[in-house]
Amino acid sequence: MENQYDAIFEIGDKNDKFAEYFVGQSYLNMLSTERVGIGNVTFEPACRNNWHIHHEGGQILLVTGGEGYYQEWDKPAQKLTKGDVVNIPPEVKHWHGATKNSWFTHIAVEVPAEGAWNEWLEPVTDEDYNKLS
Amino acid sequence: MENQYDAIFEIGDKNDKFAEYFVGQSYLNMLSTERVGIGNVTFEPACRNNWHIHHEGGQILLVTGGEGYYQEWDKPAQKLTKGDVVNIPPEVKHWHGATKNSWFTHIAVEVPAEGAWNEWLEPVTDEDYNKLS
Repeated sequence: MENQYDAIFEIGDKNDKFAEYFVGQSYLNMLSTERVGIGNVTFEPACRNNWHIHHEGGQILLVTGGEGYYQEWDKPAQKLTKGDVVNIPPEVKHWHGATKNSWFTHIAVEVPAEGAWNEWLEPVTDEDYNKLS
Repeated sequence: MENQYDAIFEIGDKNDKFAEYFVGQSYLNMLSTERVGIGNVTFEPACRNNWHIHHEGGQILLVTGGEGYYQEWDKPAQKLTKGDVVNIPPEVKHWHGATKNSWFTHIAVEVPAEGAWNEWLEPVTDEDYNKLS
């Protein structure tokens, strides 16, 4: 499956491990599993992950291509493009994913922390997602 | 100053803070200073950092453009291009930088650790550097 822009890192395999927490198709290539977990995550158009919370640690997104969104609970979604960085604090409910018409790729740096875990919550509904522009 | 390839992240300012530990001109744009330190480091052609050691923590390099080298003490230098990842363990003496004729850019993820610090050592001599191909 071709990406619509120059990928920096290999797209990796279909993200089957986390598929139940996503709407649509995503791909995951783990760039580092030692010392700090770093994944290259690619979303097909309209693909997004469910609302979720990084407990204790947090996560840092480095956008390398395409167009996507990041949204925290009770706040407007913000548009993301190449070069954007989102430093997600622990305990903040949020989601991220592609826009309707574009692929989207970010590096996700997992912030190491004692007892860190991810809580996966409800999907972003089509009704809410389709309001975004 | 123009880069010779599409940069993903802003090049940032001249890396004056660490200039004494580099041969040639580098640029630094800190993408994250909270939770995990992440810098976008760009090297002009032939620019490289001194031999150095990350004590306790380590560092992970994610290459986003250009052509460069990574070398550990007593090992051959390895060539790096877009998409390459180097997971540098703590306590390993090494250097990284550009090839003679290309700019080079990598993201550097600082591995958090209690008591982490960097030990800067001697420069990579022109004699050693010029042997690389």
